Amino acid sequence: MDMDWIKTACPEASAAHRMAAEARQNALTKPAGSLGVLESLAIRLAALQATGRPRATTAPIVLFAGDHGITAQGVSAYPADVTVQMLHNFASGGAAIAVLARELGVSLTVVDAGTLAASDISGVTTDKPRRGTRDFSREPAMTSEEVGFALAAGRRAVQRAIGEGADLVVLGEMGIGNTTAAAAIATALLGARAQDLVGAGTGLDSEGMSRKARVIDVALSKHGLDAGAPSALSVLTCVGGLEIAALVGAMIAAAQTRVPVLVDGFIVSAAALAAVGVNPSCAPWLIYSHRSLERGHRLVLDALAAEPILDLKLRLGEGSGAALALPILRLACALHAQMATFAEARISGPAP
Amino acid sequence: MDMDWIKTACPEASAAHRMAAEARQNALTKPAGSLGVLESLAIRLAALQATGRPRATTAPIVLFAGDHGITAQGVSAYPADVTVQMLHNFASGGAAIAVLARELGVSLTVVDAGTLAASDISGVTTDKPRRGTRDFSREPAMTSEEVGFALAAGRRAVQRAIGEGADLVVLGEMGIGNTTAAAAIATALLGARAQDLVGAGTGLDSEGMSRKARVIDVALSKHGLDAGAPSALSVLTCVGGLEIAALVGAMIAAAQTRVPVLVDGFIVSAAALAAVGVNPSCAPWLIYSHRSLERGHRLVLDALAAEPILDLKLRLGEGSGAALALPILRLACALHAQMATFAEARISGPAP
Repeated sequence: MDMDWIKTACPEASAAHRMAAEARQNALTKPAGSLGVLESLAIRLAALQATGRPRATTAPIVLFAGDHGITAQGVSAYPADVTVQMLHNFASGGAAIAVLARELGVSLTVVDAGTLAASDISGVTTDKPRRGTRDFSREPAMTSEEVGFALAAGRRAVQRAIGEGADLVVLGEMGIGNTTAAAAIATALLGARAQDLVGAGTGLDSEGMSRKARVIDVALSKHGLDAGAPSALSVLTCVGGLEIAALVGAMIAAAQTRVPVLVDGFIVSAAALAAVGVNPSCAPWLIYSHRSLERGHRLVLDALAAEPILDLKLRLGEGSGAALALPILRLACALHAQMATFAEARISGPAP
Repeated sequence: MDMDWIKTACPEASAAHRMAAEARQNALTKPAGSLGVLESLAIRLAALQATGRPRATTAPIVLFAGDHGITAQGVSAYPADVTVQMLHNFASGGAAIAVLARELGVSLTVVDAGTLAASDISGVTTDKPRRGTRDFSREPAMTSEEVGFALAAGRRAVQRAIGEGADLVVLGEMGIGNTTAAAAIATALLGARAQDLVGAGTGLDSEGMSRKARVIDVALSKHGLDAGAPSALSVLTCVGGLEIAALVGAMIAAAQTRVPVLVDGFIVSAAALAAVGVNPSCAPWLIYSHRSLERGHRLVLDALAAEPILDLKLRLGEGSGAALALPILRLACALHAQMATFAEARISGPAP
């Protein structure tokens, strides 16, 4: 499978538009810097979108779902059936992310990138190389062909969602067991201890979390990912997930087409860590939406030098945290575009 | 002046509606608690609004402006003229809060509760007992009649803004010099040191902040507010501001009419501290929107046991942080109302 595209460099942000946006922020009727993160976001979007009028209006949500063979090891509080049950809930509009998409007036595309579903589900795009990953405590989760397929599925989904053009793309995920895969990826890529990356997921107790950490430590050792600096692609193949590989492909493809990505919580951030490992030039295009309650998120965010917009004690996934940050981005753009300057409003500057 | 109304007890939140909202949150298709702060907000609004369907749709913004005699002591980076210049900017739609109100589809009422403006300004409601406060380093900022007038002006503004009914009210302020008044109020009410409550305001350097703290320490001693437990009303009278007293009246009046208040940053929070001091029963009605960069805010929030929704490094005022939190409240309400339950969506619960 041709995977060369994944390494193609992403364009750089526009330094000229960044400087123009900074100058405009300093001319608006407020003490310099007093809109804090809102100013940084407007300036960053202006640079990425290479425009004087950054926008976050058209912001399609793409959610990738997948199942995980590792659930056989008792690493999740919920049964694996729930992944496919939730696909129906996304499609019928009852899931959190479906409510948020509706309220925000953005499209929601749900991609079955590798769930156990045996047939197509109405309202869901099926684009998968197999049903679920293999149990990575016993064998690699995927073959390199399967990873290549999932990366390309992510690219295909982003290209469809962007369509005629998008201001940014919002990425989310669903998959019982995927906090285990995400923690395994982060443990390997950060050279950390699994116990520092493992959290409660959908609701494990402390005994469950210890088991989850042991499963990861043993698997990383088995696959030779516990030493040296394993490549992001090999980590993704051995202990990743199909929806996580699709997220990696989606991020890189969006960045390659100059579309910023709003990153959700722990799992999408672990995918971001892998994406930056695979293709470092995508990093500037990734905007981190929130700090989740999932324990490992802090280390992953620190490694990405990320300063998320929100901290709302979320641990749901689905892209819900990213969707919740979208109004902040939109208001940052509105303030940047619409506020009067000191000169326009004839307002005195600071006292001499 | 009759000020008895200010002490009238505010109604209590509905325990029955709180319990019903908690039960609904636990039945929705997500791991229990996984929507974090969004769940707490929906439950809290349900209890305050005594409804099964909490709302944050109709949310008028009321902004109180005032000038401060203490600016004669060089405590602000901007000249006092800016307060009145900004009134024009609010009215003409170029100020940050005007942009936010427009984008959020809510009304913005600007009340001149005591600026130096000599005549009425188009688009601004004038309701003030005098032009600016007195320099509180030399004499009490206001008389008790003037404080009573400003408290009632706050009540009048809230009653007009609520009109036929509001889901909540958003409070903001503007006034060159008012971080000094707010810091003085908080220092006196918390029995703290001024240097721990004083921040940069619109942009003081460290020398300016030291001067500001000295001005406050000397004034509190002069007015006998530096020992014992001074009453909130006497603190407000001696070192407060007309717009701050109006905020206190607005908060208590909103709570008395069962309307929750979305509190902005440092100055509105200092007003909340005074409001809770004057009438403790208003406390449950105050929802804290954001943690500002102004240094004293942390101590004030801690004293109020407040856990703000956002932390965006803002230090603008005007109600901007509260307006930015409004979409989060709205989405919390939408999720509460519209998500499917596990039973409706036929989704399995946690594994046994």
